This record gives sequence, C-alpha cells and structure tokens, in this order.
Amino acid sequence: MGKQDNEHLNIKVALQQDEIEQFRTIFLDLHPYDQALFYMELSKEERMKIYSYLSPLEVANLMEHIDLYDTEEFILEMDPRFSSAVLAEMATDDAVDVLNEMEKDKVASFLTIMDEESANEIKKLLHYEEKTAGSIMTTEYVAINKSQTVKETLEQLKRDAPEAETIYYLYVVDEDKHLVGVLSLRDLIISDEDTRIEDIMGENVVYVSVGKDQEEVAQMIRDYDFLALPVVDFRKHLLGIITVDDILDVMDEEASDDYSKLAAVDVDRPEDNPLAAARKRLPWLIILLFLGMLTASLIGMFEETIAQVALLAAFIPVIAGTAGNTGTQALAVAVRGLATGEYGKGDKFKLILKEAGTGLIIGIVCGVVIFGIIALWKGQLYLGLLVGVTLMITLTVATLAGSLVPLIMERLKIDPAVASGPFITTINDIISIVIYFGIATAFMNLLID
Amino acid sequence: MGKQDNEHLNIKVALQQDEIEQFRTIFLDLHPYDQALFYMELSKEERMKIYSYLSPLEVANLMEHIDLYDTEEFILEMDPRFSSAVLAEMATDDAVDVLNEMEKDKVASFLTIMDEESANEIKKLLHYEEKTAGSIMTTEYVAINKSQTVKETLEQLKRDAPEAETIYYLYVVDEDKHLVGVLSLRDLIISDEDTRIEDIMGENVVYVSVGKDQEEVAQMIRDYDFLALPVVDFRKHLLGIITVDDILDVMDEEASDDYSKLAAVDVDRPEDNPLAAARKRLPWLIILLFLGMLTASLIGMFEETIAQVALLAAFIPVIAGTAGNTGTQALAVAVRGLATGEYGKGDKFKLILKEAGTGLIIGIVCGVVIFGIIALWKGQLYLGLLVGVTLMITLTVATLAGSLVPLIMERLKIDPAVASGPFITTINDIISIVIYFGIATAFMNLLID
Repeated sequence: MGKQDNEHLNIKVALQQDEIEQFRTIFLDLHPYDQALFYMELSKEERMKIYSYLSPLEVANLMEHIDLYDTEEFILEMDPRFSSAVLAEMATDDAVDVLNEMEKDKVASFLTIMDEESANEIKKLLHYEEKTAGSIMTTEYVAINKSQTVKETLEQLKRDAPEAETIYYLYVVDEDKHLVGVLSLRDLIISDEDTRIEDIMGENVVYVSVGKDQEEVAQMIRDYDFLALPVVDFRKHLLGIITVDDILDVMDEEASDDYSKLAAVDVDRPEDNPLAAARKRLPWLIILLFLGMLTASLIGMFEETIAQVALLAAFIPVIAGTAGNTGTQALAVAVRGLATGEYGKGDKFKLILKEAGTGLIIGIVCGVVIFGIIALWKGQLYLGLLVGVTLMITLTVATLAGSLVPLIMERLKIDPAVASGPFITTINDIISIVIYFGIATAFMNLLID
Repeated sequence: MGKQDNEHLNIKVALQQDEIEQFRTIFLDLHPYDQALFYMELSKEERMKIYSYLSPLEVANLMEHIDLYDTEEFILEMDPRFSSAVLAEMATDDAVDVLNEMEKDKVASFLTIMDEESANEIKKLLHYEEKTAGSIMTTEYVAINKSQTVKETLEQLKRDAPEAETIYYLYVVDEDKHLVGVLSLRDLIISDEDTRIEDIMGENVVYVSVGKDQEEVAQMIRDYDFLALPVVDFRKHLLGIITVDDILDVMDEEASDDYSKLAAVDVDRPEDNPLAAARKRLPWLIILLFLGMLTASLIGMFEETIAQVALLAAFIPVIAGTAGNTGTQALAVAVRGLATGEYGKGDKFKLILKEAGTGLIIGIVCGVVIFGIIALWKGQLYLGLLVGVTLMITLTVATLAGSLVPLIMERLKIDPAVASGPFITTINDIISIVIYFGIATAFMNLLID
C-alpha cells in the first residue's frame, strides 16, 4: 500500500509540474485498473490535463475499469472529438453500455464524429435489449476458416490480437459466417504447424442465442468453465462473443439485484446524502404503510374483544413477527430456486406441497413452545392454547404464502424477486391478525372467566 | 433440447447393452459438463459400469463439474484404487475441496494409495484455511525463467499444457521461485521467436498473499479483469494460481451466503423433505420467538393502558412493521457496503450520521402521512398525533439501529451479514413498542376524553 501511495504522489507531482514524459512513464506503467483508481481521485482541471497527455486509446483502456455512471460523466466533459475517439477505442460492448446511458441526440452526434468502422460496430449492438446476450457481447472476436493450417492461423493471430477482446478461443466459421467449430489457443499451440484447423477443432460448439437472458448466460459460463461463449442468431450466424470478465460483472449485478429486492432497497448505488437516500427508500415504505393501515383497521374491528381482554394485544407482535420471519425464509428459498432455474414443470407443485408441510411442522413446534411459555409464565391455560393454535395455523399459512407469492408473480411474468421481505411480512401481518382475532372472538367466553 | 435428449437416449442404450466402444464414442464427444449432467441421472449400478468403461482421467474431467457434496458420495462408492486415481487426475484444488469434506482417516487412506507426486501436491494444499486464497488456488501453473526465449517457451508450453490449469498467463520466477514477472500467452505469440522473456514480461505483477480472504480475491479479479492471479507467501515465493472459473463459484457462493443470511435461511442447499427443511429453519425462528416473548411481556406491562384505550392495539403492527422495514433497508445497505469494502476509517462514522439523517426524514414523512390518515379516518386528532410522533421517533431509531448492528458486529469480528432481516425486525419491534406505549401512557389523559 505504501508503495502505491508513493507512486500516486510521484504521478501527481509530474502532472502538476506539467512534466508530460515523466507523467506518461510512471502512469502508463500501472495496470489500467490502478490508472483508473488514480484518475478517479483527480479534480476536473487535472483530468482535462490528462486528456491532452494521453492518447484516446490510453484513456479508453483505463475507462473500461470505471463504473458506468461515472464514465458517462467523464466522456461528456471531454472535447467531443476526443471522446468519440475514446469510445471508438473502447471494447465495443463497453462503449455501447456507456452510450446506452446517454440521451439519443448525444449518441447520434458521437456516432457522426466517430470513424465509420467503429460507428458501424457500435450501431450493430446498440439496439439489443438490456440484460440479453446481445447487450453484453462484443464483436471483437477472432474468426478463422476450417481449411487454414495451424501456421497460417498463428500468423493471422499476430495481426488480429491487438483488436480482439480474447484470442484464447478461435471461432471457426464457413463462407456464410455460420458457426461450425471452436478451437482453443491451447489446442492450437500444441498442434503441429501443418495441421488443418478442421482436424483439431471441436464441432460440438456450445453457443447462446442473441436474445438469451444474461443471467442464464452467466450460469452457462459458470457450468462449463468457459472463458468466452459465442453468440449466434437463429440461423446460427456468429454475431459476437461474451467474455468471462463481463460475466463477473453480470453475476455481481444480479446478486446485488436479488439482495436489494429482498430488503426492498437498492444496495448497489447507496446515496451519500440523507435526503437522496430517504427519497429512494420512501416509496416502498409508504406503500407498506398503507397496507399496514389495513391491518390497523382489521384490528380496529376487534376493538371490543381487546377491551375485554387487553392482554390479547400483547401477543400481536410475536404472532405477526414469527409469521413474517417464516414467510421471508420460504420466500427467499423460492426466489433463489426460481433464479437458478431449479424448478421444472412438476417441481413447482412439489415445492408448494413441501412448503405446506414445512409450515405445518414449524407451526406445531412454535405453537407448542409458545403454549408452554404462556401456560408457565402467566399460568393462563386458555390464552396459551389460543396463541399456540393461532401460531400453528398462521405459520402454516404464512410459510405457504412465502412460496406462493413468488410463484404467482412468475406466472404473471413479473420478476419473482420483486416480492420483498417487507412485502411478504406485511401480507403475513394481515393473515395472522385475522386468524388470531377470529379465533379469540369465537372463544371469548373461555378467555374472560 | 430434443437433440440432447436423443443423445442421452443413445448413450443410455449403449450403456445398457454393454457396447463399450459405442458408449465411449458418443459419451466422450460431449462436453464434460454435459457428461456430468448425464452421469447424475444414472442409477448406482449404471454408474458402477461407467467406472469400468472410463479411465480415471475421463471420470476426473466430468467430476470437476459436479457439486462438491455429490462428488464426495460418488468418490466413496468407487473402488478405492480407482477413486484415488480419479482424485489424482482432478485439478488439485478441486481434489482438495472434495477431501476437505471427508473424515480424516478416509483422506489419509486415499493419499496412501495415490501416486506420490499427486499426493504431495494435495498435501501441500490441504492445510490452508477455508475461504482463503490458499484454499482455492491450484499448483498446476506454468512457471518460466526470464532468460528463456519466446521459442523455448513455446516448446515448453507444448510439454506443460496438458497438466496446467491455464496456460494463458505464464509466471516468471527466479532461481529461488520468487515471482518476478508475468507474461500473457497473447503477448508471447505476437512476439518474435528470439526475444527474451525478460524483455517482454510485465514486472508490475499483481498478486495476492496466501491468507487473503477469497471474497477480496474475487473483487480483485473482477476489478483487474484477470483470467488468473498468482498466490505468494510473505517472501513472494510463488505458491499457486487462482483461476477465474473458481472465482465464478466463489462469487456465487458469497452471494448466496449474503442472501441466505438476510433471510435467516440457507437458500443454497434447499432440503427436499419438509422435516429436514423445518429442522434447518426452526433454530432461528425459536430464538426470535423468545425475543418476541420479550415484546409480549413489555406490552403486558401496559395492559391497563390498553384496557383504557383498546384502539391503541390496532396500531402495534403498523408501527412495528414500518420500523422493521426501514431497519431491514438500512441493514442491507450497511452489510453490502461492508462486504464490498466501501467504508474506510472515517466512512463508518459518516455512514451512521447519514443513516440517522435518513431515518429522521423517513420518520417525519411517514409520521405526517399516518397522522393524516388517522385524523381523517377516525377523526381522532390526539391518537393521530400519538401514532405520528411515535412513528417519527421509532423510524429514526430503527434506521439507525439497522446500520449500527452490522457495524458493531464487524467491530466484534462477527460476520456482519449474520445480522439478518428477521433479527433486526425483532429488535425494532421491541424498540417501537417501548416508545409507543411510553408516549401513550404519559399522555393518557388526552386520549381518554
């Protein structure tokens, strides 16, 4: 760490004293990710200097390690001619990600200034839907012909390598760009120079269609341990490749996303000021507050019951709370199972049966425990029985609800992860209140003697 | 899918009719992951057949795509001589993962039967602590010398490639195995044959220490877009490498882990039968049930207050629920921020201040909303004021609690993610009840007129 701080200081001094050569020597010796870390700490004036010290390619290299939202800001502060050159030098998929965040007229103007070849590559990718294979693929792959020899291919690689995102997989295509094979660089370099590609290529190519969901693509790359995966259209024309480094970002994004939804708050881009943070969290809270008022008016209907046995109120939070907890558990299991594609056709029905059984067992155990506590603690046999039986029924229903809600959402084509913990907790509040006071009112005569 | 089913059927027929050659031809043409999918569907008898049809290496290849817990079971059903040969052929890190799940005497007996070289490699890795760089690294890397030429290195690669986990990064070491440089295969093949390695290698090698937490390693590989990362001891001796395919598994594991903890249930290995599922979920539920009884006895202390104004009970769930929701949000933001290493020294204090501010704003907004509803709905000005003020105070405290609990846990060296949503919800139940009935009892005379 100390070494890094020292380096940063040296670069900063060179930058401030306008020693361009000195600056370039130390700065470009860093890994682009470390360059990005340094760059992020600079003032706007210092960044403007950097743009005149570095080439568009050098800026593009570090830009690929910067958060999407920040990149947009930086791109817009550069001279448009420079920034369109930077975009042209970035990996096509990363440039597209940045442009997708911008307003349409800005995108158009960047594409007009840009060299035609890069602009065309970018345009091809711009219209793919978000979160599909098309939106995360790059067109900078190495395509070879099956009649080439190993030697010819190695020579081709020397030419293509600087432009390609990866050269570790080579994709074999026919005259019409149909994907017919794949070859790893590993297999290439251990083969004899005169061997033809068709004799060493793998013909069982695993590929994805351009419209495939990015989460499923990530799952495939993980299952097969690939470094890259080819993307094809419905006629199996090779359109691009998806590399594992982009998959790491996808996995992180999807994980944050599921986690955020469970907690009903976006954890991925936490706000720094309280007002902005509150504005992001309040919508869900207010919706749940209104749902909560439904609970309140339900209990209000049992005002007389409570007036007769005030102690009944004491058990509202523990009943509602336990129902919320078991509901959240069942919800999390179902949402995660749906996300990892664990449930086939018949499996969803099995899941519901299983959760009903689990809920019943949990209900019986918790019901007996609370009956024991109340009977011992307050010596109130009937109250203990009431709360125990309520808990038994409530927990069965609440557990079932926790797994049903995401399944129903999926059927309605809504992302099941939207069913957050707080949401299922509030639903289960309502269910438990109705059961509790329903039973209490029915057996009132046993409680007030 | 149709094609795959067909293939599976053909292999199955060949297997049942003992047509070994036929079976090997179709089966070995599949990707090892697809082989694993097929293998997982077989009966024990069929699997036993497979072990005599395939070589240990061929079984090892598919075994690397099978879940750890299942692998252990399969390894134990094989003839010990065969299974130790399979373990020897697996990537060292994967073999170590399997052995780490077994009892010590079984591990010892496997290592005794195994060829000495493989056994030694495995022994070296067996003692690294779980979830550290050492536990996920492999020793099958390619090490080269800086005085070699490109041509010599290419020849060495042809020899080493079959054994190495990746050949896409070559690590340059000196006579004492100190890590002094790194070279990508990409840079190697575009260089002239007579160039010396020292002239093209990168000297600023990014590496990790063997004790580093696996989550931090994953973060580094993601930030730098590496395919592999070298692992060194404190004297910078090269010990092994960590490849990106293992990082995909680590990220998945860590994401499931955080998600599981937020919901207080293990979502990664859901049980198929209700009894087992209930047994896994009950411990947390019972603990929270006892905490919930604390809430009940607290409310019990205000029995008289409730007897006087029964309607007070109606607002218990909405107050406690909203406190739980905002607490869960604050918790999720803090836990995720701590996991991604977002908070430096002074940042934690800033986080607390920010959450206090956010809680206050959320409290004021929700308080005003509920005051409005109650005042309009029931026409009860004082009751509205009571619930509104309670909500304001409660939400401020609950939000703050949501961020404080994980920070305190981290200080106590407990994984902050253990602070689950249900836990913070129960804590906030208690806080909100005390505030609510405290205020209500104090201003009782205003409520009963």
